[in-house]
Amino acid sequence: MGGDHGPEVTVPAALTALQREPDLDLILVGREREVRAQLNALGSPAPERVRLVDATQIVGMDELPVQVLRRKKDSSMRVAINLVKNGSANACISAGNTGALMATARFVLKTLPGIDRPAIVSAMPSLRGHIHMLDLGANVDSPPELLLQFAVMGSILVKYVENKPNPSVGLLNIGVEDIKGNDIVKRAAELMRQSSLNYKGFVEGDAIYTGDVDVIVCDGFDGNVALKTSEGLAQMITHFMREEYRRNLLTRLAGVISLPVMKSLRKRVDHRRYNGATLVGLRRTVIKSHGSADVLAFRQAILEAVTEVKNNVPKHISEELTGMMKAADK
Amino acid sequence: MGGDHGPEVTVPAALTALQREPDLDLILVGREREVRAQLNALGSPAPERVRLVDATQIVGMDELPVQVLRRKKDSSMRVAINLVKNGSANACISAGNTGALMATARFVLKTLPGIDRPAIVSAMPSLRGHIHMLDLGANVDSPPELLLQFAVMGSILVKYVENKPNPSVGLLNIGVEDIKGNDIVKRAAELMRQSSLNYKGFVEGDAIYTGDVDVIVCDGFDGNVALKTSEGLAQMITHFMREEYRRNLLTRLAGVISLPVMKSLRKRVDHRRYNGATLVGLRRTVIKSHGSADVLAFRQAILEAVTEVKNNVPKHISEELTGMMKAADK
Repeated sequence: MGGDHGPEVTVPAALTALQREPDLDLILVGREREVRAQLNALGSPAPERVRLVDATQIVGMDELPVQVLRRKKDSSMRVAINLVKNGSANACISAGNTGALMATARFVLKTLPGIDRPAIVSAMPSLRGHIHMLDLGANVDSPPELLLQFAVMGSILVKYVENKPNPSVGLLNIGVEDIKGNDIVKRAAELMRQSSLNYKGFVEGDAIYTGDVDVIVCDGFDGNVALKTSEGLAQMITHFMREEYRRNLLTRLAGVISLPVMKSLRKRVDHRRYNGATLVGLRRTVIKSHGSADVLAFRQAILEAVTEVKNNVPKHISEELTGMMKAADK
Repeated sequence: MGGDHGPEVTVPAALTALQREPDLDLILVGREREVRAQLNALGSPAPERVRLVDATQIVGMDELPVQVLRRKKDSSMRVAINLVKNGSANACISAGNTGALMATARFVLKTLPGIDRPAIVSAMPSLRGHIHMLDLGANVDSPPELLLQFAVMGSILVKYVENKPNPSVGLLNIGVEDIKGNDIVKRAAELMRQSSLNYKGFVEGDAIYTGDVDVIVCDGFDGNVALKTSEGLAQMITHFMREEYRRNLLTRLAGVISLPVMKSLRKRVDHRRYNGATLVGLRRTVIKSHGSADVLAFRQAILEAVTEVKNNVPKHISEELTGMMKAADK
């Protein structure tokens, strides 16, 4: 029960997720006394659907993944992933250290056959609803073959989670012409063209928000830069807007009158509605919540896990991947 | 006189720049008949400060730089850069094909001693005013030594253009901890730590808009992704805001009352105020305007050229670089 806020956020988020999903049972893994204290304070509405499992260790946000793997075998992260491994749980949701979560999940759950490395994929808001983008930071220096795997995984995830039969795929580059970019994206483009993907060609950073394609594929360095840059710009615009509305009595009045407009606007771009990135490519479902997630955001991450489990995403990726590999061998 | 709009934008922008800068003389290079027609239509306020030079060829926005170099020797881009080379002009401003402009400028004007490749640097709005970022797309796969050169050039540019004695420098990465990122940024960080730069360490994408450092250094692929992603997000937010204000009579009223607020907000983040990226590292000043620049934006690019010429930026970069290289040799 980690993240920046711990059980104060994750426990109420768990309870609201239970209310929303009648079929859901949850195992809360963490320091049992703290978790139980939160549960008692809130008065669990469905005690029979909540189980507590104790985990004594805590993984710090800047601990090295390799050290966490070796030394933190009783952390909530490790214990929760073990529960998925042994079949007690269908998915793990964590707001903890991303690198440690990825390393632990890979070590314990293993990647799907044909997948070299898992990627981080998340929905992002766009003019036409939302798109999915990967990798958002798990892999740097991804070779073309890995970018192809990202494209396949993203495409299958969107197919089953969004119920879109043939998702379109774009490859992030610094121009749409064939000559643009580095050798890696050029070779990855070639692989995607030869594949059975609905590959649409290169896209630039603005394509995230125009929504021209369903899936945007990129190396984790670039995906992370795009994500963090977007967070920074959104915060700056919000800050400036507040300042401008507070300038004088008249602008404050305009601010009050604009409240419903701002509320709808915020809802459309609210990053909390997009919280819950998938560690895709593993044999089971693991969801990473933003470390600073609040109750609404963490609930969203839990609901993302529910959707992916209900839609059997890892199984579908495995099956379609096997089919693609067989077709490519012919 | 290129770009998406041609003389219809560049000629009025030139005239307003002349009004703003009394010391400025301009040579308008392009199809003389078209440029003169625009000038006549607008009635030049200072005909003695405007000279026309004919150039018959046009460089297409997707022509290959190498072909432009070989075949377009009478394009406005090439002729304008030749005028800088032979001393008739102090700077060249173009809204044309970026790759072609960079290749032509490098070929004709050459890079400064100690600089392997020029970079594209531009100001970006931030919470605390603005920052400078480079490279924005001229160089992909930049090795650590090139990233160090970007840092030095950005730092000297900011020192003289912004009059900041010791600009702080951040290196774009996907986390601020030493273990984050790829080998290239790790080795570049080492070089920057050992240099005389005011190096502050790794920054993430959001640092562009928090303004924590004066100069952000990155490979051109990442810089371009950050730039284009920002453009896309800003457009999406603007679009959603318009939609929300147009929803019904009440929201339209709120929109009218909020007009002054929105106007101030737009002014603070108006990308036109930041138009005019410098091709830094050349022996002379070359400024790249956004292809879609309007009159206000293109005028800004001209004014950026004036500032850099007045502050002798290429000369200062050359001198400080020589000093740094001598110090490093000791």
